[in-house]
Amino acid sequence: MTSTQVTLIQIDNYGPWTVTPEPRREVDLQTLQSRLYADLSQLFGNREGYVFFTRFDNMIAVTNGLDRDAHALIQESVRNRYPVTISLGVAVDERPAAALGRASTLLQDAGSAQDETRQEILQGDPLPEAERGPEDVQIAHFDVNDATGKYTDQLNAFDTFIHIEQGYAELMRYMRNAHDSLSFFVGGDNVIAVCPDLAEEEYRDAVDHVRDMVGVELKVGVGRARTAQDAGMQAKHALEVCREHRTDVELDWRLEEAGAGDSF
Amino acid sequence: MTSTQVTLIQIDNYGPWTVTPEPRREVDLQTLQSRLYADLSQLFGNREGYVFFTRFDNMIAVTNGLDRDAHALIQESVRNRYPVTISLGVAVDERPAAALGRASTLLQDAGSAQDETRQEILQGDPLPEAERGPEDVQIAHFDVNDATGKYTDQLNAFDTFIHIEQGYAELMRYMRNAHDSLSFFVGGDNVIAVCPDLAEEEYRDAVDHVRDMVGVELKVGVGRARTAQDAGMQAKHALEVCREHRTDVELDWRLEEAGAGDSF
Amino acid sequence: MTSTQVTLIQIDNYGPWTVTPEPRREVDLQTLQSRLYADLSQLFGNREGYVFFTRFDNMIAVTNGLDRDAHALIQESVRNRYPVTISLGVAVDERPAAALGRASTLLQDAGSAQDETRQEILQGDPLPEAERGPEDVQIAHFDVNDATGKYTDQLNAFDTFIHIEQGYAELMRYMRNAHDSLSFFVGGDNVIAVCPDLAEEEYRDAVDHVRDMVGVELKVGVGRARTAQDAGMQAKHALEVCREHRTDVELDWRLEEAGAGDSF
Amino acid sequence: MTSTQVTLIQIDNYGPWTVTPEPRREVDLQTLQSRLYADLSQLFGNREGYVFFTRFDNMIAVTNGLDRDAHALIQESVRNRYPVTISLGVAVDERPAAALGRASTLLQDAGSAQDETRQEILQGDPLPEAERGPEDVQIAHFDVNDATGKYTDQLNAFDTFIHIEQGYAELMRYMRNAHDSLSFFVGGDNVIAVCPDLAEEEYRDAVDHVRDMVGVELKVGVGRARTAQDAGMQAKHALEVCREHRTDVELDWRLEEAGAGDSF
Repeated sequence: MTSTQVTLIQIDNYGPWTVTPEPRREVDLQTLQSRLYADLSQLFGNREGYVFFTRFDNMIAVTNGLDRDAHALIQESVRNRYPVTISLGVAVDERPAAALGRASTLLQDAGSAQDETRQEILQGDPLPEAERGPEDVQIAHFDVNDATGKYTDQLNAFDTFIHIEQGYAELMRYMRNAHDSLSFFVGGDNVIAVCPDLAEEEYRDAVDHVRDMVGVELKVGVGRARTAQDAGMQAKHALEVCREHRTDVELDWRLEEAGAGDSF
Repeated sequence: MTSTQVTLIQIDNYGPWTVTPEPRREVDLQTLQSRLYADLSQLFGNREGYVFFTRFDNMIAVTNGLDRDAHALIQESVRNRYPVTISLGVAVDERPAAALGRASTLLQDAGSAQDETRQEILQGDPLPEAERGPEDVQIAHFDVNDATGKYTDQLNAFDTFIHIEQGYAELMRYMRNAHDSLSFFVGGDNVIAVCPDLAEEEYRDAVDHVRDMVGVELKVGVGRARTAQDAGMQAKHALEVCREHRTDVELDWRLEEAGAGDSF
Repeated sequence: MTSTQVTLIQIDNYGPWTVTPEPRREVDLQTLQSRLYADLSQLFGNREGYVFFTRFDNMIAVTNGLDRDAHALIQESVRNRYPVTISLGVAVDERPAAALGRASTLLQDAGSAQDETRQEILQGDPLPEAERGPEDVQIAHFDVNDATGKYTDQLNAFDTFIHIEQGYAELMRYMRNAHDSLSFFVGGDNVIAVCPDLAEEEYRDAVDHVRDMVGVELKVGVGRARTAQDAGMQAKHALEVCREHRTDVELDWRLEEAGAGDSF
Repeated sequence: MTSTQVTLIQIDNYGPWTVTPEPRREVDLQTLQSRLYADLSQLFGNREGYVFFTRFDNMIAVTNGLDRDAHALIQESVRNRYPVTISLGVAVDERPAAALGRASTLLQDAGSAQDETRQEILQGDPLPEAERGPEDVQIAHFDVNDATGKYTDQLNAFDTFIHIEQGYAELMRYMRNAHDSLSFFVGGDNVIAVCPDLAEEEYRDAVDHVRDMVGVELKVGVGRARTAQDAGMQAKHALEVCREHRTDVELDWRLEEAGAGDSF
């Protein structure tokens, strides 16, 4: 059974800041947003977490392994180097979307995202060390079959993008509704989903659903471990096995049992 | 009439690089992708261009004002500082998607995105200085009405994200099909579209379409100028007028005529 | 008694890389070097270490608290995101310069800094957890008295710089020769020195020496703790006490005893 | 005859900001300073300028080619993305130190570096386009002979650093006093000096002086052009000629005349 620790990261009062005293140059906002995300990726990643850019002013992280102090340090580091501050809500649940729901509520209860007096909230309860286990996090790494051959090298780059967006949008809604899973586009033709404990059948159903609904063909590698970093690396290796064996779904721990996979 | 100069930016051989010799840590790939995008935003932005992250391994820029040398300099700067290189295809057309189509073909003709011998292509013809004019670029800046009140402060952060994604997906397809326009999510609840010369009615139709199809309510500010930077800043100011006057569509040049807007 | 863990960070084969196939643009080399340093500052800093830019191709860090795995993770993160790789040598000694000497030898024995086959060395023995204590690291934070009033607001900026360089050069040699201490200019008018266990008298002597030799007046705050981060923050607070009380030397643990300082 | 345009970049009110409300973490200050410098290197570099980190809170740039608007854009970009702002003073003179002196005075007259009401000053007169010429900027690139063989691969890394610092300190003072030249350590064993029009003899004298005074052996390549970027790249190429021919001084334009150099 999974025990997903999710942290919601919200930039304080960002909307108003971007237009005060006048609207700020878009290229500078893009640079600021992207670099803040990149820094958070390193800060959480240095402790085995994963961060997803999501909407940039609101970002979602899987933070099994980071305690309250680790969160506070990250918050301080941002305060010292950026013109904005961040609020963090942390919650744990077997079902990732439920954890995120509680993390969202923690921030909402403290005040609006555009309330200038709500700053640097840090709320919630990380998973106690004694309660952590080797199957806490389950990560599924999807990618589009032969995206380069079918799309990138053939179509107008925006039409390729539309195809991949459609595939992502369909997958994200399905996984959220069917499994309370959270799915994130991470660049290229890749989507990473944070899942509860699902069986091979359920991943196969997701792949079939997306093919049937929007004609986009996916394959997926799945890993499970104590942290997002380890589960995610297992998932990448399982995805390589899909590529080599031309299969649609590979679960790293099954490969382990069969003696063919790498656990990370 | 618009004359949009579009540059397609493609990281050379990226897919293979991310898994050679072994799959690389996801948090590092995310950091690399985001920082490359942030740097390109500054490099193109320093010369009045706009860059959109799109798929991160493929990015789309509006580059009116950048000649071939300016593109070469950016390419060199990336080569000197990153473990990857980029190829650039440039084309100009009244209709943004057509320009992107030709830019895509320039790169495809030079070789596959995953062909390790295809490196640092620089192809295409920027708009000659003598042919540039004050209405070359038209930028529309959409945002979701009261996203903070309706979504961010109420829903689970992922469900807010799903709503905004649906609005974006619907808008992007509509604008592409109806107007050969290219639309990009830029964070928060904002979408920036690069358009040919459209009338107020056509923007109103787009807003209505998205409301009718997915229930997401948008407003939009539009600007037109010699460069993306200027057209984009006009659009931001027009969007502020929408906010103040509670309107759905504002065209900056109409505000200019009426003496109420700021041209940037 | 101190027990300083020092890590020498050396970019592999950097000299040749900067001129192959042709000399690379200086502004890009500066950007690469500075950002690599900034990243290392965050990576080591996230685990309570301090990094000093030193020569940029060779950097020195105080890494009490980072074990071998933590070093390996940092090395991997750089490999995944930069066009260069780094080698790391780690050693521990009561005297900082001696620790650095052994760390230097570890890398030299593995091969020349410009030997293209020597890559990503990771050698040395971090301080075992069981041997760590609350006085392992001693950090002295020096700054120039009234630098802004005397220099910055009066002189040509380069002449101000020459004064501060002279003060730094004199201090660095004195502290190295007298105490096997390592001193680093860290911007503005600040120098941070990593010291063995020194008495108030010895810091006073250093301040007098610099005043007598080059006419630059320094004050210094000193801290000692389990990690560079904590010792360094104590030193900053002690320096603030110097500023308020107009004293030349303040040791944070003396302030603690007197009930007037903040321990961090 | 040279015509050096120098810009002094000063972070507004930085000293107080670093300790308000409490001293900020050193690793974060180092990251902030280094990344600001890296960004300025790209922003000025994108328009053929060079920036030197100097003291990080005060930085010196050679900005032939950047007009007032280009300076304003850089100032705005920093304001939009950093928790600090910068003031810029610009001046032109045949002698670099004189230009810097006037640039320093422009900022000093506007207010103290630690006056919180003095923000984002932009003062001074860039070199008018009509007055620019192909020999405006003269750049000399020095490096230490066989630094790797003699020092890096033999000595304790700090002792290597002390040697290089001594060589730099001696060179910087000599060039300032004898020629009103500004010299900057740029990493590794490299020093870049911005000079008035000097003859081969004068460079030879500088090399001899440093060898005689501190026993550090330098070689130097010199370039001259319309911009720092071009002059600097010529200097790098001339330095490569020194390396190949085992000479101490090479002037790129002499190599040009002899048909052996590359002009950039």
